[in-house]
Amino acid sequence: MTADAASPRFVHGADAAWTDLGGGVSRQILGYDAALMMVRVRFESGAVGALHHHPHRQATLVESGRFQVQVGHEARVLVAGDGFFAAPDVEHGVVALEAGVLVDVFAPAREDFLNRDG
Amino acid sequence: MTADAASPRFVHGADAAWTDLGGGVSRQILGYDAALMMVRVRFESGAVGALHHHPHRQATLVESGRFQVQVGHEARVLVAGDGFFAAPDVEHGVVALEAGVLVDVFAPAREDFLNRDG
Repeated sequence: MTADAASPRFVHGADAAWTDLGGGVSRQILGYDAALMMVRVRFESGAVGALHHHPHRQATLVESGRFQVQVGHEARVLVAGDGFFAAPDVEHGVVALEAGVLVDVFAPAREDFLNRDG
Repeated sequence: MTADAASPRFVHGADAAWTDLGGGVSRQILGYDAALMMVRVRFESGAVGALHHHPHRQATLVESGRFQVQVGHEARVLVAGDGFFAAPDVEHGVVALEAGVLVDVFAPAREDFLNRDG
């Protein structure tokens, strides 16, 4: 991704590709530029987003479903309308207790997603 | 907001305050640090987010409802699952054709929101 790469101004969810990440998890990229990226991540019931960390800060909203979420050494069950924030390099992960969707945003953008999904 | 200000790691939507912005629009701040902020904005039917611009880049997801959205000189009707991206200083605005909620994210964070809502 070059420094001036960016999504179109408008993204229609029905038209945007979903990338199958395996294990009942898939991801759709919405708006982004080099400094900010918004994605939706769909989880089947029981699917796992394994504990991981990255230098990008991340804010997440639970759009639907019910998730066991760990951030650092703290864990909570989150439902629609709840969210979490993972500071840079702070470990985080989720387990979908029910099928659902997370809205994840990253600053800066996840170039690795563009290379994999794009 | 100081450079190291940040939200709690977990925000429960049922507990987070809504700030009445007038005109049928209210806003709830979710996760943030100085570089990234996620908010939800609720619109009554017919409510308007007037055209404006700011140096922060913005990505938005329509969580629910139906919105007429203008970004730059381009306008679209967006529904749940659709999104838009406004580059820094690009004018944008919305009209809620039906009541609904937008998920707005900003990089860097909107310090003005913290000063007003916090």
